[in-house]
Amino acid sequence: MEFNLNRSLEILSSTPAVMQKMLGELSNEWLFGNEGKDTWSPHTVIGHLIYADETNWMARARKILSDTDNRFEPFNRLKQFELYNDRDIHELLDKFSNVREESLKQLRSIELNEKTLSRKGIHPDFGEVTLSQLLSTWTVHDLDHINQISRVMAKQYNDAVGPWKSYLGILKRPI
Amino acid sequence: MEFNLNRSLEILSSTPAVMQKMLGELSNEWLFGNEGKDTWSPHTVIGHLIYADETNWMARARKILSDTDNRFEPFNRLKQFELYNDRDIHELLDKFSNVREESLKQLRSIELNEKTLSRKGIHPDFGEVTLSQLLSTWTVHDLDHINQISRVMAKQYNDAVGPWKSYLGILKRPI
Repeated sequence: MEFNLNRSLEILSSTPAVMQKMLGELSNEWLFGNEGKDTWSPHTVIGHLIYADETNWMARARKILSDTDNRFEPFNRLKQFELYNDRDIHELLDKFSNVREESLKQLRSIELNEKTLSRKGIHPDFGEVTLSQLLSTWTVHDLDHINQISRVMAKQYNDAVGPWKSYLGILKRPI
Repeated sequence: MEFNLNRSLEILSSTPAVMQKMLGELSNEWLFGNEGKDTWSPHTVIGHLIYADETNWMARARKILSDTDNRFEPFNRLKQFELYNDRDIHELLDKFSNVREESLKQLRSIELNEKTLSRKGIHPDFGEVTLSQLLSTWTVHDLDHINQISRVMAKQYNDAVGPWKSYLGILKRPI
């Protein structure tokens, strides 16, 4: 599928509610279980998604549309440990809903057409990227973290499933 | 984590609402996109989850607790193509909510204690499995299919993300 704004908005606007339903009623065993040393729990992921919406996606979209400076700031993938580690999950889930709503308000205020979608910014690692690639990546990034949360939670039952482990691909996925 | 009924119920009872939020407002491009020939779309997965609740999980639990016959019937992983392929996604999501509610009503009616949880059934492929392993597997099976749906959807944007693909592990995961 090629990038399509409405198709992306379907995902981007639903992710906070998906996270609410996945995590809103869970015990700490699920919320804070991870995949081992220096890996992320579901709680960590929500902090990361908040920080990415606060500082990354729309900031980069504005850089791409800027006439003076289209170089992206690097993104700190670990900042949530400093900012959000000690916050209650419900506070984080609500905050994610709010920052996402604000991001999408900003996104809808941009005129997106073939010309603006093909404008480019400079990524610190791999150079030129277009606005449509940025918005597609934002969409896939949401799905990637839903994927991660389901995997991390499943692994908490790695031993409990016994011989069924051989049928459950999710338990064999690397980090 | 060892098997714990309440921890499992947190997942098993939330999955229908997670699926509603993930899929309830999506276009057909997301609902019916798959990973290639003979692979499953998100729509396929919901049919599979319905059929598994209708015929597999609690039926196997009852076999384990039966005093006369503890051999499981084989489970048909492809039956949804025959039963549910042509159904509207909203009908399937509602049906999944209903069959899950019924399954959990049945589950809650069983007396689960150390003794019943260690009772065994005979799986057609790998022989003896306990009730706690069955219930753990049911839980991980939900998470595995949330994982699959997020991966299948992400892959529809495989090309749209451009050079970001190298950072998005989900796009490189096999089926």
